[in-house]
Amino acid sequence: MRVSEFPRDTCSVANALEIIGDRWAIHVLRESFLGVTRFEQFRRNIGVAKNILSDRLNTLVAGGVLERRLYSERPPRYEYRLTEKGVDLYSVLIELMRWGNKWTPSPDGPGVILEHRGCGKAIEPALACPECGEILQPRDIRAAPGPGALAREAAS
Amino acid sequence: MRVSEFPRDTCSVANALEIIGDRWAIHVLRESFLGVTRFEQFRRNIGVAKNILSDRLNTLVAGGVLERRLYSERPPRYEYRLTEKGVDLYSVLIELMRWGNKWTPSPDGPGVILEHRGCGKAIEPALACPECGEILQPRDIRAAPGPGALAREAAS
Repeated sequence: MRVSEFPRDTCSVANALEIIGDRWAIHVLRESFLGVTRFEQFRRNIGVAKNILSDRLNTLVAGGVLERRLYSERPPRYEYRLTEKGVDLYSVLIELMRWGNKWTPSPDGPGVILEHRGCGKAIEPALACPECGEILQPRDIRAAPGPGALAREAAS
Repeated sequence: MRVSEFPRDTCSVANALEIIGDRWAIHVLRESFLGVTRFEQFRRNIGVAKNILSDRLNTLVAGGVLERRLYSERPPRYEYRLTEKGVDLYSVLIELMRWGNKWTPSPDGPGVILEHRGCGKAIEPALACPECGEILQPRDIRAAPGPGALAREAAS
């Protein structure tokens, strides 16, 4: 089986996009990573209509990425916090930011920089091989059919 | 300035999302990375309506991520290939795939696996610090206002 022929219904990218495949959802995630938790803060920072924001928050809660918590009873008010599943999206956001910094730069430079707490340096995180530690360039990586695709082929 | 108060119009994530902030656009990119170049292949593999596909291909070409080339004159037919700017999105796709594999797994395992050509191992690429080489976890990274945000503050 060629990798381009793997069955698309086993595609993890497609699964991920069911939850976060929308620009407003990713704007919400960016705000969450910056510490925003409340509806009105999200709305103001993103500049998004209330009904769209409400819909995307619901999708992210239903997808297990955000958790909704009551923080005031009268009137009832909720805050939205990243779950462990949500925090694990940090690498997607970081790679979007790195790409945006490089290819669609703002005139004065990036609005946000990242620092590695461990060594204290301002960095642009890079993809690395966890086995040998080498920094990976696009062409260092080969895609191959995985067990989900091979199981399907064996059963057909 | 707190990082959460950086001006959103200098946001590189937002700039990136203007081009690729749509699930169909990212499906197209996945297919491009798997070697698909032709309209009909994209349409069949993604299972997307022609008008939506046509719109997303145009957006990706306008955004400089794909390049449109005539490959047949009669009838006129085009193929779509990743530019250097497009190839540099590999890390976004890889991180979406890694996240999907972990949090929305398919019953038989991932449809696609990745191999590092350098060391020959099947891997899940990880984010690393390019300065010290350490693999990064979400909380190892601190966001701070960047030059784009500070320039704005100084001017106001």
